[in-house]
Amino acid sequence: MQNWVYSFGGGSAEGNAELGELLGGKGANLAEMANLNLPVPPGFTITTEVCKEYYEKNRSFPDNLRDEVEGALAKVEILVGAKFGDPSNVLLVSVRSGARASMPGMMDTVLNLGLNDETVEGLASQTGDTRFARDSYRRFIQMYGDVVLGIEGQAFEDILERYKEGKGYLLDTEMNDDDLSALIDLYKKMINKSLGTPFPQEPEEQLWGAIKAVLDSWMNTRAITYRRLHDIPEKWGTAVNIQSMVFGNMGNDCATGVAFTRNPSTGERSVYGEFLINAQGEDVVAGIRTPQPIIKSNHSSINDDKFSMEDLFPDVYHQLTEVMTGLETHYRDMQDIEFTVQKGVLWILQTRSGKRTAKAALRIAVDLVEEGIIEKREAVSRIDPVALEQLMHPALDPEAERNILAKGLPASPGAASGSIVFSADRAEDLAAKGEEVILVRAETSPEDIHGMHAAKGIITSRGGMTSHAAVVARGMGRPCITGAAEIKINEEEKILLINGEKIPEGSILTVDGTEGEILKGKIPTIPPNLTGDFETLMLWADEFRSLKVRANAETPDDARVALSFGAEGIGLCRTEHMFFESDRIIAVREMILADDVSGRKSALEKLLPMQRADFLDLFRIMDGRPITIRLLDPPLHEFLPKSDAEIREVAEYAGATFENLRARAADLHEANPMLGHRGCRLGITYPEIYEMQANAIFLAASDAFDRNISVDPEIMIPLVGSGKELQILKLLVDDVAVIINRDREKKILYQVGTMIELPAAALRAKEIAETAAFFSFGTNDLTQTTLGLSRDDSSNFLDSYRQSEIFLNDPFASLEQKAVGELVSTAIERGISGRQDLKLGICGEHGGDPKSIKFFHDKGLDYISCSPYRVPIARLSAAQAALNKIPSD
Amino acid sequence: MQNWVYSFGGGSAEGNAELGELLGGKGANLAEMANLNLPVPPGFTITTEVCKEYYEKNRSFPDNLRDEVEGALAKVEILVGAKFGDPSNVLLVSVRSGARASMPGMMDTVLNLGLNDETVEGLASQTGDTRFARDSYRRFIQMYGDVVLGIEGQAFEDILERYKEGKGYLLDTEMNDDDLSALIDLYKKMINKSLGTPFPQEPEEQLWGAIKAVLDSWMNTRAITYRRLHDIPEKWGTAVNIQSMVFGNMGNDCATGVAFTRNPSTGERSVYGEFLINAQGEDVVAGIRTPQPIIKSNHSSINDDKFSMEDLFPDVYHQLTEVMTGLETHYRDMQDIEFTVQKGVLWILQTRSGKRTAKAALRIAVDLVEEGIIEKREAVSRIDPVALEQLMHPALDPEAERNILAKGLPASPGAASGSIVFSADRAEDLAAKGEEVILVRAETSPEDIHGMHAAKGIITSRGGMTSHAAVVARGMGRPCITGAAEIKINEEEKILLINGEKIPEGSILTVDGTEGEILKGKIPTIPPNLTGDFETLMLWADEFRSLKVRANAETPDDARVALSFGAEGIGLCRTEHMFFESDRIIAVREMILADDVSGRKSALEKLLPMQRADFLDLFRIMDGRPITIRLLDPPLHEFLPKSDAEIREVAEYAGATFENLRARAADLHEANPMLGHRGCRLGITYPEIYEMQANAIFLAASDAFDRNISVDPEIMIPLVGSGKELQILKLLVDDVAVIINRDREKKILYQVGTMIELPAAALRAKEIAETAAFFSFGTNDLTQTTLGLSRDDSSNFLDSYRQSEIFLNDPFASLEQKAVGELVSTAIERGISGRQDLKLGICGEHGGDPKSIKFFHDKGLDYISCSPYRVPIARLSAAQAALNKIPSD
Repeated sequence: MQNWVYSFGGGSAEGNAELGELLGGKGANLAEMANLNLPVPPGFTITTEVCKEYYEKNRSFPDNLRDEVEGALAKVEILVGAKFGDPSNVLLVSVRSGARASMPGMMDTVLNLGLNDETVEGLASQTGDTRFARDSYRRFIQMYGDVVLGIEGQAFEDILERYKEGKGYLLDTEMNDDDLSALIDLYKKMINKSLGTPFPQEPEEQLWGAIKAVLDSWMNTRAITYRRLHDIPEKWGTAVNIQSMVFGNMGNDCATGVAFTRNPSTGERSVYGEFLINAQGEDVVAGIRTPQPIIKSNHSSINDDKFSMEDLFPDVYHQLTEVMTGLETHYRDMQDIEFTVQKGVLWILQTRSGKRTAKAALRIAVDLVEEGIIEKREAVSRIDPVALEQLMHPALDPEAERNILAKGLPASPGAASGSIVFSADRAEDLAAKGEEVILVRAETSPEDIHGMHAAKGIITSRGGMTSHAAVVARGMGRPCITGAAEIKINEEEKILLINGEKIPEGSILTVDGTEGEILKGKIPTIPPNLTGDFETLMLWADEFRSLKVRANAETPDDARVALSFGAEGIGLCRTEHMFFESDRIIAVREMILADDVSGRKSALEKLLPMQRADFLDLFRIMDGRPITIRLLDPPLHEFLPKSDAEIREVAEYAGATFENLRARAADLHEANPMLGHRGCRLGITYPEIYEMQANAIFLAASDAFDRNISVDPEIMIPLVGSGKELQILKLLVDDVAVIINRDREKKILYQVGTMIELPAAALRAKEIAETAAFFSFGTNDLTQTTLGLSRDDSSNFLDSYRQSEIFLNDPFASLEQKAVGELVSTAIERGISGRQDLKLGICGEHGGDPKSIKFFHDKGLDYISCSPYRVPIARLSAAQAALNKIPSD
Repeated sequence: MQNWVYSFGGGSAEGNAELGELLGGKGANLAEMANLNLPVPPGFTITTEVCKEYYEKNRSFPDNLRDEVEGALAKVEILVGAKFGDPSNVLLVSVRSGARASMPGMMDTVLNLGLNDETVEGLASQTGDTRFARDSYRRFIQMYGDVVLGIEGQAFEDILERYKEGKGYLLDTEMNDDDLSALIDLYKKMINKSLGTPFPQEPEEQLWGAIKAVLDSWMNTRAITYRRLHDIPEKWGTAVNIQSMVFGNMGNDCATGVAFTRNPSTGERSVYGEFLINAQGEDVVAGIRTPQPIIKSNHSSINDDKFSMEDLFPDVYHQLTEVMTGLETHYRDMQDIEFTVQKGVLWILQTRSGKRTAKAALRIAVDLVEEGIIEKREAVSRIDPVALEQLMHPALDPEAERNILAKGLPASPGAASGSIVFSADRAEDLAAKGEEVILVRAETSPEDIHGMHAAKGIITSRGGMTSHAAVVARGMGRPCITGAAEIKINEEEKILLINGEKIPEGSILTVDGTEGEILKGKIPTIPPNLTGDFETLMLWADEFRSLKVRANAETPDDARVALSFGAEGIGLCRTEHMFFESDRIIAVREMILADDVSGRKSALEKLLPMQRADFLDLFRIMDGRPITIRLLDPPLHEFLPKSDAEIREVAEYAGATFENLRARAADLHEANPMLGHRGCRLGITYPEIYEMQANAIFLAASDAFDRNISVDPEIMIPLVGSGKELQILKLLVDDVAVIINRDREKKILYQVGTMIELPAAALRAKEIAETAAFFSFGTNDLTQTTLGLSRDDSSNFLDSYRQSEIFLNDPFASLEQKAVGELVSTAIERGISGRQDLKLGICGEHGGDPKSIKFFHDKGLDYISCSPYRVPIARLSAAQAALNKIPSD
């Protein structure tokens, strides 16, 4: 038999903190506190199962809910010694929603429920405070009218204002008892007129109306949106908490407040909170009055003319701090507490783990370990890996004023200010002159990379969280906003249009990549600090993880950053990305545009010494750590010159005619370059390209040997779909190695492996593994091909897809496990059946995503590789995966 | 113990016709004939296993081969009563290659092997014909020098010519015995000079040289190319046949010839062949002299001054026709026979199944059944389904002269002539005036369809066998050549450049889509004839097949053609293809370019009546047969207007501004449209589009009801990757059906299903099948996504891939079974686990490919659907699959 209702209060409860799924966070903690014999006003919780039933039964209540609620209410009446709806000794209750996770989109609270024309007078005589009683009733009618009956709060405010005007009052406090009665009548009339029915006088009816309103709010638009944004499943449902009222507004010996057991911003171990005398709870949140601090030392400039609770209510203060310490010790985490003081008596209305900044989270976790309250593994488990991003990029000063011009997707966190420019070249030019610039483009392509590198921040009007701009910016650690649909770029006139406002090139804007906000002018930033608690916690994380963490890096800068963040190797060195500097990309273009072997060879000869030097640099920096070098894999469209000027430049450089090159570029145009002539297909058709690259790798390795640098190159063949392709190309690499080892009298050890990024490769993994020393899952492309979804083009409909719950997560951010994940599993299984000691890694964007990392850990991969700036996230996620602390979908 | 050599002759043989794999076709049939006690010159066959060993052992012979060859040679010596290398009674042999399948790329024949300076004089005295002996020796030296020693035949011809000049001879026959001796010396000297070693005098050495040459020729470039083009595996290897010589050139009682038991061109039951008196076999093939007919009635105008064999050698003729009848009865198929008459004695040198045209194949198969020689199932099994294409399109008159300008891929068979034009609009304009035009484009896109329809033939300089042009042309039955790389189109000057020749617009060309040849001028064609034997055989095929055959068709014309070819329904009606006429595509473009719901609805209102009328037409034509209607699935790039003029046109039509539309078109540009915002993604984001289409379908069905036409619509949702997508869209369709059924008081039955064309869909087939009434495999897209291979862009490297044997077949022509096939199997298995009565079909290009059809049959699909012109091929292939007569890879 299902229990729909759980009671609490009077030193015991039917539930406890373990029952969060059933009772919601608030309900479970109220029960827990009651069990701890803390002063919790008695009440009961209607479970989340009721919410599920309610929706399954087309918004009707389960059969015996009414009986259970009546029973629970009777218990409360006994504990409080008052009766619901009895004017002679009235019990009032609050009704609040309470989901498993905090849900700002939902109905919040109805207070003072149970008041009506009769009980209000009863309350007046009981408390001896007619004004208090009537004001409570007035507030109740407004609150209930608003959140249950759906009448806008403004309608009540208008009546109040008109009434005060009519009386010539300025302040609410000027109203006397009769004024309040009059106002109550006006409110009730307005409701009757609006709805055609009177304001419900029957407390039972009020209660069920409020319960229904809470349940209905689970499916309102704001709640749905919030759930989608925070990956909260609809099926969780909400609980409803009904609790006897206590009053912080019955006089100056009453108060209400909010307190954290530690500073949620810094993590400092010190009570942090504020309170209001003679007020109800929502007054603190609403910010109508400025609250006072709880402890003396916490005075901020804005309220140091007030006295602290420590000064004003020393006894209650003492009791409160004891309760807080007790709660923190009990819950073994920093708590966020709501309390009310009624006539000098302290009541605790809520406790929960307090939200905190990443910085505070680290400090609190480390402190709790040092205080002996939690163990390292728990400290490591508690930190949200993604929140670390906050710490890794310069952040805007939270105190600064923000003038938001437009919003986009928070594609790469951090913040930067600078003058806006509309082309990569212009960005480079100005940056070379020492100017800080923000690059604004419709979208970016690899040929913008020099400009992105030169820029301090990037804004694009198109693209999603995994667009080229987003991926590259994250890789570079540049703050970036993508998909800022409100902005229009007029490149010709060099003007940015935002909602009608014309912003010329050179204007100063600030990019807040963490929030996705484009701000006017320069906002001051604060620098990151990755030592101290951060470092401590990362080292603890390393103790628990079994997955190795590498970085995707090509340039010496990237490699150094990766190392500083703890990368244990390079998991993806994209050789074509080594050629984006202007003197190099032109040679790459010459090679791609060459229409015969000799033309390609001439370009390759120019590239060989550059690659050789690059590899030597990387070998030196990585100092014996493994480096997975992917041979050329350009989807051609990323490299083809687009303008006539660029073609002319290549023609001059290559000694070819403009017309020929233009014709060749047109020939090379592909309808779907992602599925085109790229990856190992280039190696098969133009073996001289991979030959040059193999030469560069082995010559550099040989150079490194001569300098006593040890090397561990893993040569990776991209876009393989069959064993035969890999066989052919491994042979080519082996042949080069044999010659160089012979000519230079070396014994360079290396491995040849492949990316698994096509469904065909996953399915044919056994035959491929027979030739491959390692697999590295290219989950970006595997996602694109498995789902038939272009990363560059899906932003148009991905949002619809998430709204319709077709995708629960962006599949380019978090691995889609039903299809893509199955292929990964299949490839692992079959790969190992083809070669027992197959090394397994992953080098897509998913290597930096906690949920995906959990998946990779569970599948037994050897390492993950991600962009340098996500390495700490990956280290922590890998530890949490090993500790089994990341929830699955 | 392996037997390397199989002897035959003297009324028995060690092998027989069953051993084709081991002995090659020629060797197996020689053995068979010897067993039948036919007059076969004794000899032996070196098996294909030797060839395999030879290559495995780095081109060296198996250990005991020499012994076995010596033994077999000794047996021949006994049977013939002569000795190899013995001048007093010399045995001469021929050496021929003989693979399982006929291989024109390989070494053919060395005759008269065993002759040297001594045996030639022995042969002279034995035969009493010095001239014959010396001429045989001279020919042998030339033949051996050419095919074994690698000296070009021209070198010998030059010597001969110079010698004759010196002597003042005009004809070979003017040379006397001494001249021949002198010539033999000159030949030998030239060889000695070229190679630095003398011509081998030792018959043993000659023999082993020839055997080695046959084996080596298995890996020459021509053979490799031929194998690749005809899907012949390298591992098959070739056999070598060594046979005692008989001579058709020992006088006027000698002859040699070739004969078919039935006419290979028409299939008529009548000996068909020719012979030469006093000649060796290769003279017939070489065409140096004009041969004479075998039977009287067969005189053609070119040789009716000659007498037939029937007249000249009545006894031998009688014996030959008896042998032929016997062989045909024995082999139960039309035979192609080579024979030699030596001194009035008939020898049979070879028999094999005769090559024949598709027309002849049908007639012979039908006749053999009627003659009681084979059963219907065998007749059905014997016809090459692909060869039927020859019959289905007008073909060029084979007698006409051909002036080949360039070659391309034979993308769509048949032939057509007309004036060339370079744009679809121009094609339409001229066709409207009654002109026959050939459309020449770099490549085509859907907006060229009206021009392709208007054109008689299509040529593109880019694209492969499955490019847009190829697919559409095959669907329309238009001959088409794609990837004609030699041609360059200068659209501005309206000139076609072929190898330097400028061909202006309006010039007349002929497209031979069967051969892939572009011909100058107009070549006369002959019309197809699909009744008679064709019809008979197709009806027999229908008796055996279990797969249903449907067609991919949208227009009334296509639907009617499909029905006439025996389609049992429409398996794919691409609704967007119903909009290519100019007044319709503009509305489609308006819809695509609309930037809000109201804009789309306005365009959709224009489209609704058109679609409704189209569907009614189809319902009427298909008369109750199932029609699978795919809702809109355009990869946007196929539909976006490209030029400003087109945008302006749409703007005018839609009442929008040019600038807005241009901006919107730019917004909609996709990097990889194949993986972009298309298929059901359009239905999810813009439900009003699918709503309009569902309305059009149900309104048309209701219209059909009113006219007493029965309907069986299957509504297909494209590009589904998850159950949820299909759920959402099925609900949408169902809602429309409910409303129309209610409003029009009908009970329209219909099904909703999906295409399986993404790896994700195949893997998640169970959840999808829970909502889908049917699956139709879209193997084109499934191939693209599984292999990561763009159909439009792969022609650049597919050839390299086939050469490297990465792909054995073009994966867009014949289903790649290792990965794509596995996904199809997985989807079937999981689909059925989700819904037991799931209907299964396939509607990709592979529906017309025999190997793929075998795969689909084996997997238990319900139907296949292909372009109308491939329906007969599909019917026959389905029957052969059921009879298990299609070989697997």
